[in-house]
Amino acid sequence: MFITIEGPEGSGKSTVANIIVRRLEQLGYDVVHTREPGGTPIAESIRNVILDKNNTNLDARAEALLYAASRRQHLVEKVWPALKEGKIVICDRYLDSSLAYQGGARGLGVDNILNINMFATEGTFPDVTLLFDITPEEGLKRIAANANREVNRLDLEKIDFHHKVRQTFLELADKYKDRYIIIDASKPLENVVEQAWEQIKKKLGI
Amino acid sequence: MFITIEGPEGSGKSTVANIIVRRLEQLGYDVVHTREPGGTPIAESIRNVILDKNNTNLDARAEALLYAASRRQHLVEKVWPALKEGKIVICDRYLDSSLAYQGGARGLGVDNILNINMFATEGTFPDVTLLFDITPEEGLKRIAANANREVNRLDLEKIDFHHKVRQTFLELADKYKDRYIIIDASKPLENVVEQAWEQIKKKLGI
Repeated sequence: MFITIEGPEGSGKSTVANIIVRRLEQLGYDVVHTREPGGTPIAESIRNVILDKNNTNLDARAEALLYAASRRQHLVEKVWPALKEGKIVICDRYLDSSLAYQGGARGLGVDNILNINMFATEGTFPDVTLLFDITPEEGLKRIAANANREVNRLDLEKIDFHHKVRQTFLELADKYKDRYIIIDASKPLENVVEQAWEQIKKKLGI
Repeated sequence: MFITIEGPEGSGKSTVANIIVRRLEQLGYDVVHTREPGGTPIAESIRNVILDKNNTNLDARAEALLYAASRRQHLVEKVWPALKEGKIVICDRYLDSSLAYQGGARGLGVDNILNINMFATEGTFPDVTLLFDITPEEGLKRIAANANREVNRLDLEKIDFHHKVRQTFLELADKYKDRYIIIDASKPLENVVEQAWEQIKKKLGI
């Protein structure tokens, strides 16, 4: 089973994913917890091009193609082999992040980004996508609280961007009803864990 | 005007391109002679991932996405600005190479490769594509003669691959009749230069 975790920073998704992975392992499941580029050397070197601070003039479409290339390599080297062995793969962000951030918020178009990702993934969609939904304002508050810092001007300037990300994720949840599960991430952590855990158990039939 | 030069190694395309660029410059044209990644640092670093000898397990689709990303960055940083300034851009290999080598010969499908390259190029096709056409056997002979070496086993094993490349180029020439010009590259160099030069002059109306 291929499970992806989506949502903004500050939504608690990484913390919750860690807890769920531990619970699944305690139940005897073989779980691969990963995120792109996932330690695969080629995907890492692609990611380095994206993240290189000197590459400030990296074009948005080139960036989208690089993410798709990194995704492909991570699938081939890590996700597909694990799924083939019957393992549960939990991946922190996957193609929906590209659809929301680059397709929706950066304005490249969700369909355009889906299109190149269909080439990259050959149609490997997750079985389950947990969307940790929270308003940008609330997510921002949590990031600020975590980092012990004031909300700065940059954070505020980007609020519209984050609204577009959230809106696109919600549209995707509506489009892909079969695999999407919306988690109310505004609730306290314990409650969010239980929401996610209930859904995972239901999907696994346990 | 955006001119691309396509064809296999051993077809003499680089030699002929150099001569044509000199002739155009002598006539006062402002010419940018380039090839991907064209010295653009980001495109170079993408190309380094493709060419890294340690990346032997680079997946074919990931490779195709990386070529498309490198192409995009080269367009944005070098080709489009030059075309905007009214220069003649002559590019040694462009998207047709991806279509022929990866789409045709590697079996990823010409339409699939075209698809991701439409995203990368936003439909920037060349105005003119000179296809230096030569049989793989003849091209191979020339490479061998140039390098002062015997035709080796590897060259021979790949002959079917090169036949597929040639066949795909010829199919593209048929599909894109308006921009494709087939140069008979089996002729002596001087003749090949004149074939190409006549066609370029005709396109420029000189």
